Amino acid sequence: MSSNSFGKLFTVTTFGESHGPAIGCVIDGCPPGLSIAEEEFRTDLDRRATGKSRHTSQRREADEVEILSGVYEGKTTGTPIALLIRNTDQRSKDYGDIAQTFRPGHADYTYWQKYGIRDPRGGGRSSARETTMRVAAAVIAKKWLAERYGVRVRGYLAQIGEITPGSFDWNVVEQNPFFWPDAHEVSTLESYMDALRKSGDSVGARVNVVADGVPPGWGEPIYGKLDGDLAAALMSINAVKGVEIGDGFGVVAQHGSQHRDEMAIDGFASNHAGGILGGISTGQAILASMALKPTSSILIPGHSVNLAGEPVDVVTKGRHDPCVGIRATPIAEAMMALVLMDHALRHRAQCGDVGEMLPRIP
Amino acid sequence: MSSNSFGKLFTVTTFGESHGPAIGCVIDGCPPGLSIAEEEFRTDLDRRATGKSRHTSQRREADEVEILSGVYEGKTTGTPIALLIRNTDQRSKDYGDIAQTFRPGHADYTYWQKYGIRDPRGGGRSSARETTMRVAAAVIAKKWLAERYGVRVRGYLAQIGEITPGSFDWNVVEQNPFFWPDAHEVSTLESYMDALRKSGDSVGARVNVVADGVPPGWGEPIYGKLDGDLAAALMSINAVKGVEIGDGFGVVAQHGSQHRDEMAIDGFASNHAGGILGGISTGQAILASMALKPTSSILIPGHSVNLAGEPVDVVTKGRHDPCVGIRATPIAEAMMALVLMDHALRHRAQCGDVGEMLPRIP
Amino acid sequence: MSSNSFGKLFTVTTFGESHGPAIGCVIDGCPPGLSIAEEEFRTDLDRRATGKSRHTSQRREADEVEILSGVYEGKTTGTPIALLIRNTDQRSKDYGDIAQTFRPGHADYTYWQKYGIRDPRGGGRSSARETTMRVAAAVIAKKWLAERYGVRVRGYLAQIGEITPGSFDWNVVEQNPFFWPDAHEVSTLESYMDALRKSGDSVGARVNVVADGVPPGWGEPIYGKLDGDLAAALMSINAVKGVEIGDGFGVVAQHGSQHRDEMAIDGFASNHAGGILGGISTGQAILASMALKPTSSILIPGHSVNLAGEPVDVVTKGRHDPCVGIRATPIAEAMMALVLMDHALRHRAQCGDVGEMLPRIP
Amino acid sequence: MSSNSFGKLFTVTTFGESHGPAIGCVIDGCPPGLSIAEEEFRTDLDRRATGKSRHTSQRREADEVEILSGVYEGKTTGTPIALLIRNTDQRSKDYGDIAQTFRPGHADYTYWQKYGIRDPRGGGRSSARETTMRVAAAVIAKKWLAERYGVRVRGYLAQIGEITPGSFDWNVVEQNPFFWPDAHEVSTLESYMDALRKSGDSVGARVNVVADGVPPGWGEPIYGKLDGDLAAALMSINAVKGVEIGDGFGVVAQHGSQHRDEMAIDGFASNHAGGILGGISTGQAILASMALKPTSSILIPGHSVNLAGEPVDVVTKGRHDPCVGIRATPIAEAMMALVLMDHALRHRAQCGDVGEMLPRIP
Repeated sequence: MSSNSFGKLFTVTTFGESHGPAIGCVIDGCPPGLSIAEEEFRTDLDRRATGKSRHTSQRREADEVEILSGVYEGKTTGTPIALLIRNTDQRSKDYGDIAQTFRPGHADYTYWQKYGIRDPRGGGRSSARETTMRVAAAVIAKKWLAERYGVRVRGYLAQIGEITPGSFDWNVVEQNPFFWPDAHEVSTLESYMDALRKSGDSVGARVNVVADGVPPGWGEPIYGKLDGDLAAALMSINAVKGVEIGDGFGVVAQHGSQHRDEMAIDGFASNHAGGILGGISTGQAILASMALKPTSSILIPGHSVNLAGEPVDVVTKGRHDPCVGIRATPIAEAMMALVLMDHALRHRAQCGDVGEMLPRIP
Repeated sequence: MSSNSFGKLFTVTTFGESHGPAIGCVIDGCPPGLSIAEEEFRTDLDRRATGKSRHTSQRREADEVEILSGVYEGKTTGTPIALLIRNTDQRSKDYGDIAQTFRPGHADYTYWQKYGIRDPRGGGRSSARETTMRVAAAVIAKKWLAERYGVRVRGYLAQIGEITPGSFDWNVVEQNPFFWPDAHEVSTLESYMDALRKSGDSVGARVNVVADGVPPGWGEPIYGKLDGDLAAALMSINAVKGVEIGDGFGVVAQHGSQHRDEMAIDGFASNHAGGILGGISTGQAILASMALKPTSSILIPGHSVNLAGEPVDVVTKGRHDPCVGIRATPIAEAMMALVLMDHALRHRAQCGDVGEMLPRIP
Repeated sequence: MSSNSFGKLFTVTTFGESHGPAIGCVIDGCPPGLSIAEEEFRTDLDRRATGKSRHTSQRREADEVEILSGVYEGKTTGTPIALLIRNTDQRSKDYGDIAQTFRPGHADYTYWQKYGIRDPRGGGRSSARETTMRVAAAVIAKKWLAERYGVRVRGYLAQIGEITPGSFDWNVVEQNPFFWPDAHEVSTLESYMDALRKSGDSVGARVNVVADGVPPGWGEPIYGKLDGDLAAALMSINAVKGVEIGDGFGVVAQHGSQHRDEMAIDGFASNHAGGILGGISTGQAILASMALKPTSSILIPGHSVNLAGEPVDVVTKGRHDPCVGIRATPIAEAMMALVLMDHALRHRAQCGDVGEMLPRIP
Repeated sequence: MSSNSFGKLFTVTTFGESHGPAIGCVIDGCPPGLSIAEEEFRTDLDRRATGKSRHTSQRREADEVEILSGVYEGKTTGTPIALLIRNTDQRSKDYGDIAQTFRPGHADYTYWQKYGIRDPRGGGRSSARETTMRVAAAVIAKKWLAERYGVRVRGYLAQIGEITPGSFDWNVVEQNPFFWPDAHEVSTLESYMDALRKSGDSVGARVNVVADGVPPGWGEPIYGKLDGDLAAALMSINAVKGVEIGDGFGVVAQHGSQHRDEMAIDGFASNHAGGILGGISTGQAILASMALKPTSSILIPGHSVNLAGEPVDVVTKGRHDPCVGIRATPIAEAMMALVLMDHALRHRAQCGDVGEMLPRIP
């Protein structure tokens, strides 16, 4: 597996730099016969897009997806599906400053030490712009999972700084620019974000993602566990520093009598496990959560060094989100959908002959 | 990559069930010329072994490693290294009860739904016995990393239930059965564990693992990030429900001005990132943490169903740790060592010609 | 994929040296519920075994397969199946001579240049002893393919030196030590081999392998073509220098009007393609052929150099087949079976929802 | 590894259909710092291109390569390199006929049976147009291999129908449209091809490919052998039905005393092995050969069936080469270069610390 590819059987390979000519991906292994059109990418790309509100960065691009291959007369053919998005908002400005300096908290220094060369324009390959193609690829995965198995993957912002939602309603999540589940707090968040932006600083966030309708049996022991693959998938998102399944770090202080999810023939009594036991889905909702660090691109000067080894102060001007976690919600959904899609195919490869096992707990 | 294999270039494939004839692994891709002898596996296997103290389960096995291949006259030859451990403590007792019942919190139900068949003896493949071979394989990785790069990987128990260490000393960690870094609290922990065992219940834990000496440049964007691979590696350990890199979930409430690690030519000012930026090592210590759930194998009855779909109460008798997290410390070290070994090889494959880059922050 | 692993979904990892403690393999991805017992490996291992007749080498070992994992109460469980065979015929003789000298036509020199170290005992890892585990693994693949799809894989010796069969009968193939399809020529072959052995020389051979019952649709474009994977599989067998599908090199002098297999609704008019078009099976018999070089282990002295760089003459004493191609027949079958098994699983992963397509040519 | 990806460390993923909007590839794992410009793809793409002479098909496209990513200021950065070529010669004609009929000798029937849907325009994904991107990707591999190791990969047409070259001169190969090494026979070939085209038929061919300068030690036992990977690589080229390494099928009638390449400190006495022993390069020239079938796209009617299951006669009009083998020479070079590039990286990953071994045979 190349390091820019994700998935064993539903394999997504992304390419492109933030300010290069284009970004794109190749999806290999998609089942044939799925209807897909270019306009179907619109919704999720808009959800992820910058410029959605004044609370996210002001890069404005249409992000028009072109399907280059793998689709004939509106249906997938089983051959690789290439998707392309031209970068239309490339800035012509001089990158000389950035090219000479390692921004603290960014990948500038590590790319330099690894490769001996780096593309400094907008973060190059390390920019979150790459996640656009994950969201695009996941549009296909989400559609197939929904049509074939009734699986639905949804996410929401579960914490921003110290603020957590006071109530929860899925219907609210898509009706505010924060993917926030509590309608009463949206104006509070807006004030909070406005103050943050004025301060020139940024803040971290937590995003939760949930998959409903996953049948029992997806996931593979030992190094192909569903939770292991989810952990890798979510941790691969820019700025993520922590991943939880089910109760996550809450389990440290729990007792076994409290944690284990008791079973009855009409259902599980609880879902502390987050829908996964032994790396395999239980049939309950799959629950994952991730922590995103505050972006390091802020207006407050930070100490660093330049290519000459001299001390410098860095201020990151330009378009930046004060909370990168907000736009991470559709990206988290995308990664969970890609993991589930891959495991759906892996499961039927090995266990396609295993019928309906009883007892089955709904 | 098969689901029982780990690593792209230093590939470890494990096999074996808890109560089958043997467990073992095949290590493919090891550099030639490394000295290795069967007795070198002893220390880490003892650290992981059951029966180390009254606080861990009472399965008593010598865990003698036999090297079946890949070593000639005491040195690795570059061909696959197979390691074998016979299971000598197989119980001859009847597994009928367990075979008919799904233990809550265990993989019994999910294996059943996935495969339509399961080996009920001691948890079969889902038992933590499999981790023995990870520890064995990592002995080789640790040795090569230490000899070739001066890398050292160490772990400790960072929390058990609500208890956290009051002080920290690496020298203390290996001198008590808990891998606990605070010598003054060891007796407190012993009392706590005794009480817990008497109550028939179990508790969760947090394990931290640290790698020193990793040079900058290991790790690959985008889906082969060092932190992404670490997340998958740690989450693949039995009972793990959460993984953090650096400040982990602490970043949610942080500001960017606080989180970003400022740089100077004589060093980084902090290590909130945990030694990884953009998926690539910075040259600082690599910091990871994981949460382990309380084992579901407890003496307190739990509700479940049997194969006939009838409600049953399950009590798990036999040898079980009241805190599985204790023995997870060497396993966490093993997984971090395997990830680093793999990335050391991956780095020199692609970037073997990149020389020493300046500035280099020590 | 590690270089000692074969197959993407039905993944076989082999290990072991010719004169090490043991050889073995781990099979990952086997569907659950297949009945398998240790005695079922007997037939094919005997067919491959040395010492079958005076025309093959005299290494005599029982080759007893031990199933270490992945099978419970006689059925595969879906977890990795480890098979182990102890090397009981290790010679205690001094390998000093061989260790100091590079035998012409063997891998001695190349292993030395690659690894800087080599196991000289009986060829170490480069010995054809490794193929024992391919045959063992393929016993499982053959059984599943037969039970699930009615696929049958068979091979025969199609040429030895200048001799080709005058007639063809599958029933004859298993009734002589040469896997030769013409009963009348068996005594001729025996005389030929006796004379060859006396001369101290060796000869090449051609082995054909055929799979009946493969449904249309197995194989994947572009780099996962069924013929591409077969080519890699057969070329990976020791001593193989050429691989053909269908008419193979015969196509060079053919015309298109002659080569293309015309179709009618009751069947194809011919099978020049060998049952594969565009990398995907047609539903006809899969036909492959391979060329094996004459072994370089002969009694006639050959020029070489030793570790000191001095010229030496090498004579290979000990147990060696004058025609290694004879025993390669079951190995060729094994590799074809492993390829087909892998593609059966890959096909149902991606195309499991594609129903019976019409027209279907029988 | 996805089925449209090639290579473990230098991974090339191709996409695109013959008459879709574009074809392209993503190259992952390229070492950083290599100079590359769009115009460098010109030479090899022209060598492969249709319309080179009246003896190859008349599809006329500029095949302009656009570099979409992975190159900054003219140098590779280590991130994935995406190359794109727009299909400018798409025909607007109705594909209704082809869509209803399975052309004999083509992949129409097998794609249909596999996927239940197929793109009939110009053969869709099964068209040799895909090989354009292999040639493009290999331009990068060839350049790196030449600069870093002095490796040179060259091919030539070694047989067409019954005609073989009477003499050999590398200088001649690039000076005629046939890649033919004998200058005196070029006019004969032209007459032969003219007559063939008039007859409406096609003919097979043999292409040889040679790599000079490969150091000893590249290639991996057992399933990652250099010859095994070459076999897969060449067999994956459209129309290839046979692959040989060194003497290939000639070994069947050879004796061991004749075949084994004797060694002296100043060199090997011969190269029957084709530069590979035990799957690892010897340091001699790597020699491979492949057989290409006559194209099935000919003007002579052939029997087939249509989607309704009715018998039909098929005539393939349009642009087609009477000998597809002619243009396969640069494609064979490309595949050998990709294999060598991958193994160069794999070798230094595992054996990067193995120094110069003596004796070294030049």
